[in-house]
Amino acid sequence: MATSEPRATGGDPDPNSDNLRPPSTTYEYAWMHGCTRKLGMKICGFLQKNNSLEERGRLAGQKNFLSCDNSDRDARFRRTETDFSNLFARDLLPAKNGEEPTMQFLLEVVDILTNYVKKTFDRSTKVLDFHHPHQLLEGMEGFNLELSDQPESLEQILVDCRDTLKYGVRTGHPRFFNQLSSGLDIIGLAGEWLTSTANTNMFTYEIAPVFVLMEQLTLKKMREMIGWPGGEGDGLFSPGGAISNMYSVMIARYKYFPEVKTKGMSAAPRLVLFTSEHSHYSIKKAGAALGFGTDNVILLSTDERGRVIPADLEAKIIEAKQKGYVPLFVNATAGSTVYGAFDPISEIADICEKYNLWLHVDGAWGGGLLMSRKHRHKLNGIERANSVTWNPHKMMGAPLQCSAILVREKGILAGCNSMCAGYLFQPDKQYDVTYDTGDKAIQCGRHVDIFKFWLMWKAKGTVGFEQHIDKCLDLSQYLYNKIKNREGYQMVFDGVPQHTNVCFWYNPPSLRGMPDGEERREKLHRVAPKIKAMMMESGTTMVGYQPQGNKVNFFRMVISNPAVTQSDIDFLIDEIERLGHDL
Amino acid sequence: MATSEPRATGGDPDPNSDNLRPPSTTYEYAWMHGCTRKLGMKICGFLQKNNSLEERGRLAGQKNFLSCDNSDRDARFRRTETDFSNLFARDLLPAKNGEEPTMQFLLEVVDILTNYVKKTFDRSTKVLDFHHPHQLLEGMEGFNLELSDQPESLEQILVDCRDTLKYGVRTGHPRFFNQLSSGLDIIGLAGEWLTSTANTNMFTYEIAPVFVLMEQLTLKKMREMIGWPGGEGDGLFSPGGAISNMYSVMIARYKYFPEVKTKGMSAAPRLVLFTSEHSHYSIKKAGAALGFGTDNVILLSTDERGRVIPADLEAKIIEAKQKGYVPLFVNATAGSTVYGAFDPISEIADICEKYNLWLHVDGAWGGGLLMSRKHRHKLNGIERANSVTWNPHKMMGAPLQCSAILVREKGILAGCNSMCAGYLFQPDKQYDVTYDTGDKAIQCGRHVDIFKFWLMWKAKGTVGFEQHIDKCLDLSQYLYNKIKNREGYQMVFDGVPQHTNVCFWYNPPSLRGMPDGEERREKLHRVAPKIKAMMMESGTTMVGYQPQGNKVNFFRMVISNPAVTQSDIDFLIDEIERLGHDL
Repeated sequence: MATSEPRATGGDPDPNSDNLRPPSTTYEYAWMHGCTRKLGMKICGFLQKNNSLEERGRLAGQKNFLSCDNSDRDARFRRTETDFSNLFARDLLPAKNGEEPTMQFLLEVVDILTNYVKKTFDRSTKVLDFHHPHQLLEGMEGFNLELSDQPESLEQILVDCRDTLKYGVRTGHPRFFNQLSSGLDIIGLAGEWLTSTANTNMFTYEIAPVFVLMEQLTLKKMREMIGWPGGEGDGLFSPGGAISNMYSVMIARYKYFPEVKTKGMSAAPRLVLFTSEHSHYSIKKAGAALGFGTDNVILLSTDERGRVIPADLEAKIIEAKQKGYVPLFVNATAGSTVYGAFDPISEIADICEKYNLWLHVDGAWGGGLLMSRKHRHKLNGIERANSVTWNPHKMMGAPLQCSAILVREKGILAGCNSMCAGYLFQPDKQYDVTYDTGDKAIQCGRHVDIFKFWLMWKAKGTVGFEQHIDKCLDLSQYLYNKIKNREGYQMVFDGVPQHTNVCFWYNPPSLRGMPDGEERREKLHRVAPKIKAMMMESGTTMVGYQPQGNKVNFFRMVISNPAVTQSDIDFLIDEIERLGHDL
Repeated sequence: MATSEPRATGGDPDPNSDNLRPPSTTYEYAWMHGCTRKLGMKICGFLQKNNSLEERGRLAGQKNFLSCDNSDRDARFRRTETDFSNLFARDLLPAKNGEEPTMQFLLEVVDILTNYVKKTFDRSTKVLDFHHPHQLLEGMEGFNLELSDQPESLEQILVDCRDTLKYGVRTGHPRFFNQLSSGLDIIGLAGEWLTSTANTNMFTYEIAPVFVLMEQLTLKKMREMIGWPGGEGDGLFSPGGAISNMYSVMIARYKYFPEVKTKGMSAAPRLVLFTSEHSHYSIKKAGAALGFGTDNVILLSTDERGRVIPADLEAKIIEAKQKGYVPLFVNATAGSTVYGAFDPISEIADICEKYNLWLHVDGAWGGGLLMSRKHRHKLNGIERANSVTWNPHKMMGAPLQCSAILVREKGILAGCNSMCAGYLFQPDKQYDVTYDTGDKAIQCGRHVDIFKFWLMWKAKGTVGFEQHIDKCLDLSQYLYNKIKNREGYQMVFDGVPQHTNVCFWYNPPSLRGMPDGEERREKLHRVAPKIKAMMMESGTTMVGYQPQGNKVNFFRMVISNPAVTQSDIDFLIDEIERLGHDL
């Protein structure tokens, strides 16, 4: 397979974004990224001033070093880099004499990454440089996704790294509002870099002693925030909220029908799960996967704000029992995906107690509010839950993936999942093997998701997370106040948002005079997708939209990135109006 | 919460390992890590030579810069670093003027990490610095795992990073043989650093365009290696082999009993799964989780090498049918965890065809051998499988986590798992939404596991993986030849290993004359744990042990790290004998 020529490795990896950057800074940006480059400039400046040609030659002649192109009176600096075009992966460690190229290669990668980090926070940079799948598949000037039998040079690998970032989406950009997870936390990032360098596995204390203990202490702290006495209980970090929710259904089933573990679902009566019609689809997915069937996942009605109506829960429990089914599990959502709604946990807990049902709280999105003295009341009653999902990678800004399943009763996770594989979990080890976590999980190998979060907590303190959360909620209230009475806007539901979700329609002028009806609905349904497509093409911002129930497509604005300011909210509104005005 | 004083941030983060390092290199190691330091040295050397005090002052006076302590005639270099003790996470980006401290902080972290990388490949460094859980929990001089309400300084955060690595296990060390996943691939590491910097999610093309396409192309390439016509089919990267295996059971059930998705297991007859008694426990875990019950996971007998006996499979299928159960699924293991055994896939495929059963091949460990022309014959018949698990994070050296579930039939993954959540997967997007992968997965958010692997493939080519695999298998044969007739060693099974697993007992001299019997068995059972404990205490090497069936504890040696050489194998044997001689 042939790849086209790699592009030059120096310079600005994102030329398409120049139009967004104030012209006066272009030159500076092109060269001043990366500390090594800065050092180079300082060295060059020094050399020029001293005009010691001999010394300059000695220094610049160093392999991997920097030279100054002095021919221009403006003292332009050209970087002479390691020649990666003749180096290959096989020349890196553990190769003999591989240390030097390894360090040079890693520092070159870091230069690319730190440059990307800087640009992520730079509002003059685009959020994305959109291309259609077929365009990227056909190959973009030197960036070929196809794999080949023969190795590529490290020069090409560095180009690939730059281009991968170039054609991606800057999820940490202050104008990226598309997902519940956004932002680029520097401490979290450092934590992830360390995690991948440590490259180990959570299943035993033996090979992840520090991480296993960090997980234990952090989970305890999270259980304390939930309000379980003494922070007692159990838990795990799992690969995302959907898997955490799946755990909750599994352990609920094990608690009430432990024989299912050995005999299968045929050992249990027809079990029924309850969750809001606004809840995350992972509860249904769990119902399908675990053998309950999606028909046995009963959807609960909600009020106009998307909160479960407790009376509906009770009525549906009674109805199920009358049919001879066995209600097992109720999921209360703390922060729904679209509306950001908080189900009334206390009232739901009353009903769960009355009917002896497992109460799970899906706080994947809203769990972070437990860190805020101002907002944690929205989760009142969570301390009565049997299990909780809480994703620090959403509202708390931890890098992906970071999701916890927390369980009030100790031992039940292990009871549910243990298979006691002798080749992994030897009881005759020299340390206290109760620290081994592998047999509690449905995974065998388990990625280290804890370190970045632990490090962020250390670096920010609980108060830092609180400030982060309060700030994002303040911003969403700013947005709400800005548009609630603004011409052309219509809120999907009334009232101050409970979470950072602000849901609204934008009516272009052409629709404003139109009478309600199918034609208007159809037109309005197409507005958000059209604006979104234009946003992505222009790369200026990103925000999500979706229909919900009988409501046509509306925008769902969410804020979880502390880099966002009021000016970014203003920008979004301006952009919607600019792009949507003539629709 | 009070933490003790942070230790100085410069210098050697791992003083305990000094005894393993040749004394002559200590000084060099302590100071010559990190390119920025080297640059500093070069600058200082230059300044000293020129003796331009004014310039020296100008340069050294720069914030964050380097100064030369010239008072010593040996020209010692002291690094003047950013004072991180007064900096906090809140001072980093997105803070105003946060760019400079952010870059300095990240470069400091990189310095810690590159130093760790170098030491990982340095045989004079220990594999681990073992401490018991209670010791780490009590806190180690400045390293306190407890979380607090108030933020810690960045200086403390950097100390925490160093200490986290210091008290961890160097899984990339050439003498770490403890796990199927080992090694520290530099390209893979760079890929992970980039992945965490991009911090996005695989569920839609919209926010991960490049990664989604890389996954698609890489999975196709893997299917080609399996031998499915034209590389057709489907697949996903999942969080580990256990989840990949779970997918295989789910889709097999969906293929034969699609109504289970909506109606639950009660819609199906009693379904039975078959897998080797030597297979990974995740098949049983999947049976428990998905509602089959572990009783319905039938274990197949194996020959002396741990390979499934096809006749036993057929007999057990017939037996199950006679009982009125419905055989559904057979797992053939390609590279078992302990013995490294390859089940005879072709013969098993014949039986699956005859009885119309789903054939899954768990190649989590052995799948990598498909890259080797010399060894891929061990997986003959895999092209007849309906699904395959293949973990590049094991034999192919990709960083954790990197596991693929590959499926021959297109569409079945989506059929099994899709819930069509409107808020995530909008059909009215401006691009071809068939590229969105989220609804095929049981996860919602899905970590980007593809990039590091794609980048490694680019950098090494298929031939690079082949060399890696052939080398590791050659080394295991070297070990086998070395110990098969060596005094004190007894092989758990005879013959050249099929994979890199070499299983053996070490008999200390005290046991060699003892007659066979319960007493000897009990004593032998305690040998491996004792040697392992001493290895860990001394930190020199790590290798796994376990019992299997009626066999008492034996060592399982595995090699997946291309940094390993014959001298490391020799070292392991010497170490076992040194530590075990007097037991």
